[in-house]
Amino acid sequence: MKTITSKNKLKKIIQSQKSLGFVPTMGALHNGHISLINKSMLQCSKTIVSIFINKAQFNRNNDYHSYPRVMKKDISILKKLKIDYLYIPTEKQIYPDGVNRNIKISSFQNALCGKNRPGHFKAVVDVIDRFIKLIKPKKIYLGEKDMQQLKIIEHFIKSNKIKTKVVGCRTVREKNGIAFSSRNFLLSSNDKIIASKIYQLIRKKKKQAIKNRIFLRKIKRKIIKFGIKKIDYIKILDVNNLLDLNSKKKKYRIFVAYYIKSTRLIDNI
Amino acid sequence: MKTITSKNKLKKIIQSQKSLGFVPTMGALHNGHISLINKSMLQCSKTIVSIFINKAQFNRNNDYHSYPRVMKKDISILKKLKIDYLYIPTEKQIYPDGVNRNIKISSFQNALCGKNRPGHFKAVVDVIDRFIKLIKPKKIYLGEKDMQQLKIIEHFIKSNKIKTKVVGCRTVREKNGIAFSSRNFLLSSNDKIIASKIYQLIRKKKKQAIKNRIFLRKIKRKIIKFGIKKIDYIKILDVNNLLDLNSKKKKYRIFVAYYIKSTRLIDNI
Repeated sequence: MKTITSKNKLKKIIQSQKSLGFVPTMGALHNGHISLINKSMLQCSKTIVSIFINKAQFNRNNDYHSYPRVMKKDISILKKLKIDYLYIPTEKQIYPDGVNRNIKISSFQNALCGKNRPGHFKAVVDVIDRFIKLIKPKKIYLGEKDMQQLKIIEHFIKSNKIKTKVVGCRTVREKNGIAFSSRNFLLSSNDKIIASKIYQLIRKKKKQAIKNRIFLRKIKRKIIKFGIKKIDYIKILDVNNLLDLNSKKKKYRIFVAYYIKSTRLIDNI
Repeated sequence: MKTITSKNKLKKIIQSQKSLGFVPTMGALHNGHISLINKSMLQCSKTIVSIFINKAQFNRNNDYHSYPRVMKKDISILKKLKIDYLYIPTEKQIYPDGVNRNIKISSFQNALCGKNRPGHFKAVVDVIDRFIKLIKPKKIYLGEKDMQQLKIIEHFIKSNKIKTKVVGCRTVREKNGIAFSSRNFLLSSNDKIIASKIYQLIRKKKKQAIKNRIFLRKIKRKIIKFGIKKIDYIKILDVNNLLDLNSKKKKYRIFVAYYIKSTRLIDNI
C-alpha cells in the first residue's frame, strides 16, 4: 500500500490508471467500509481509499470534534487489506479556494436528513465532486446505509455527465442487527443494546407499517419508551426516488434517524 | 499471491510463518469464502487458501462430479483479494496412503447431516486434520452455514490438543436471503426464488416454532407446497451443543437441509 499525502504525487500516480476503484471515507473504518473496499478490489484493477474528515459537512462543531479519529488503526487495517493507495489530503489540498456553497444538487436533499442538517448534502456533494476531479476513478463505492447520500450523489453524477460509475453496496450489520457505522465507536454497550432493539422492532413491524401507518406511530412510541429522547424522523419511502408511499413503484424501506445521547444514528431497513 | 502445488514448497514456505491464517475451500468461491479470507487477512500476518475438492467426503458420485469447478475464476478472485498463498494439492499429496476411516470424531456427527450422509463428517475431519498437519496454521476459518461441520471440527481440535484456533464466521447471505454456497452455482433463477421463499418463511416463523413445535410441522408442509420433494430434516437445536430443545441453554437455531432437484442445500437461521 502506497500512502499519498501530496496532490502532485496523487496526480502522477493517477495518470496511468484506467480502472481505478475509489472508496471515500472519513476514517474510523468498520466492516461496512471493508465490504466497499472488497468490492472495489474485485471489480477494479487498482483501489484507492481516502481518509478525510470533511469539516464542511458537519452541522455542529461538537459533532465534528467528537467524530472518532483512529488513524493508526485505520492505516493498519488498510495495509492488511492490501489496498493499492491510501490518500490522506490536507484541508488545503481539497479546498484551495474554500468551500463551494453554490453547488446544485437534487431535490432529494429536502427529504429525511436534509431537513435536520441544512447544507449537509451540498457539502457532501461538493467534497465528493472535488475528490472525483482529483482522482478520476472509474467507479466510486458508497454504502446503502446512507441511502439519501447515495441517491443525491448518483443524481449529481448523472446530471453533470461525470463518467465515474456509482456502485451502491448493501448495509453490513453487526450480529445484533445494528448497521456498522463509524459513530458506533461512540456508543456504550448499553447504547448498543438500545440501537439493536430499535433495529429488531422496525424489522419485525416493517410489513405492518407499510400496510398501515398507524403502526409507524406505534413503532415511534416504542422507540421513545426505549429511552430515545430525540427522533429526527421515521418514515416509509420508496428507495427508488425517496418519495412517499403514494408513488407507484414498490420498493419501500423504513428510514430512521435518532439520537442516543449526543450520537446521531441513521438506518434504513 | 504465490500459488503452491508441491508439498515440499509448501513446507519450506510454511516453516517461517508464525501467524498464518488458513481458509480451506473446495473452490467455487463466493462471498461467504471472501468474508473468511477477509477476517484472516485482518487477523493474521499471512493468509493461505486451499482449493481441494475432497472426493472422500461426497456420498454420491453424482454429487462429486456435478460439484461446480471454476478454477480460473477462483484464482482470479484470490489474486484480486491479494491473499499470500494459494495451495492446490493433488490427491496424492493429501492422501499418500489413502483415506483414514478410523478417525474418532464427536457425537455431534449423529445429528442432522450425519444421519443422511454416512461417513461424511469423518472424511471432512480427516482432510482438515491432514491440512492442519501440513500447514500448521495459527487460525483456521470456517463458516457458520455448515454449523455442524464447524462444531465437529472445533471438538476434534480441542480433544486432540491441536494448537490451531478455530474461527467461526457468520453466514453471508444474498439479497434474497439465501446463504451463499458453492452449490448455488447449480441453481436456476427459479430454484433460487424457491430457496429464498424457504428462508423468508423460516425467518418469519422462527419464534413461533421455537415456542411450539406444531409450527415446525406447518413450516415443513409449506416447504413441500413450494415444490420441494425431499426434506432431509428441519429441526430446532441449541447451537452450543446441537442438542434438542430440552437443553437449558437458549441459543436455538432452525437447521434445515433439503433438495432442489438434485442439489442439496443446508442452512441454519
